Amino acid sequence: MNVLVIGANGQVGKHVIKGLAKSEHKATAMVRKEEQANKMKELGADEVVLGNLEKDFSHAFTNIDAVIFAAGSGGSTGADKTLVIDLWGAIKAFQYAEKAKIKHFVQLSSIGAGDPDAQPDNIKHYMVAKAVSDQMLMATSLNYTIVRPGPLTNEASIGSIETTDMFKEIGYRSIPRADVATVLIESLSTESARGKAFELLAGDQEIKRALENV
Amino acid sequence: MNVLVIGANGQVGKHVIKGLAKSEHKATAMVRKEEQANKMKELGADEVVLGNLEKDFSHAFTNIDAVIFAAGSGGSTGADKTLVIDLWGAIKAFQYAEKAKIKHFVQLSSIGAGDPDAQPDNIKHYMVAKAVSDQMLMATSLNYTIVRPGPLTNEASIGSIETTDMFKEIGYRSIPRADVATVLIESLSTESARGKAFELLAGDQEIKRALENV
Repeated sequence: MNVLVIGANGQVGKHVIKGLAKSEHKATAMVRKEEQANKMKELGADEVVLGNLEKDFSHAFTNIDAVIFAAGSGGSTGADKTLVIDLWGAIKAFQYAEKAKIKHFVQLSSIGAGDPDAQPDNIKHYMVAKAVSDQMLMATSLNYTIVRPGPLTNEASIGSIETTDMFKEIGYRSIPRADVATVLIESLSTESARGKAFELLAGDQEIKRALENV
Repeated sequence: MNVLVIGANGQVGKHVIKGLAKSEHKATAMVRKEEQANKMKELGADEVVLGNLEKDFSHAFTNIDAVIFAAGSGGSTGADKTLVIDLWGAIKAFQYAEKAKIKHFVQLSSIGAGDPDAQPDNIKHYMVAKAVSDQMLMATSLNYTIVRPGPLTNEASIGSIETTDMFKEIGYRSIPRADVATVLIESLSTESARGKAFELLAGDQEIKRALENV
């Protein structure tokens, strides 16, 4: 499949590009700036497309079979950008994906999106944006997988995970970004991951096996 | 019907309470603080219930037949509160309303919610929150009416309006809050307003008549 990676220049996005380069898929990296293109090619992207989540980026969906949405406005901007980029940008991506009749939409969410009301005040608004984005995706006609990892680290890949829909009971163990990227990619070719939203932590199950039982 | 007014202490909310007092309906005013209760009673509320959109306010839906949602975080708080109150508070209200099997949910939205991408940067995030809230309401099983007025004024009621779904062509004429409140109330008893979202401006059609042709 030709996979459009939205947010390819982000911390998880770069791992996704690297992982796709080693997979059976082709990677089309969507980035905001021309000068980010070379870096994407170096990481292994087959194509690079310029697109801005704050504008119309429907052109990025040409000849695309699947989407991995790993974009975010980041921690240094205000909540207004959380609304305009994280939430509205994602909703526009759903609409473009439906129009383009893509086969699978994989969304990087967050463990707190399962229950925003249980979050501390300083991150609650962010978890609301992720929760609503997830709910909007579920309401589309798209084949989706929603991945909600615990706190992300830059540690080396462990290669094994735990998935759950009861994050409250297992707590907030972290997970390397490299392993999150592998889960996003493996979800594309794992039938049982379709139509699912699940929490994700470091654990002791091999990734492919864990996704088959999600 | 017993109508729960969420955001009863807001500028439009107060007009709604006054209008309901003169109607065939009963008004239950939801306010955040005990000291706001007397004011609501003075305006004509039959009941007052304390509820906070940032918390669980499901108790407010007991014995309620319809909801008018006129709440907002206001202009003096940040975009984080727009997410937590305007958007997430509304989504929780939809869920409570579905559980309580209410007959009609009338939502006060804004003219810019029809096309957030066309809005100036400084209000775009707010229009995104309203647009997404509207879309989430449409995706519920509730009977809804979504009212999207132009710029609100405190001028005296004109008593006549124009409704449209083509706000771009008619521009941004304003409308008195008193008339918006009347539209919210009249929507409850106008069959043709069910399942509709429309822009609203001052105009030359009598309110009830305009709603019958919406």
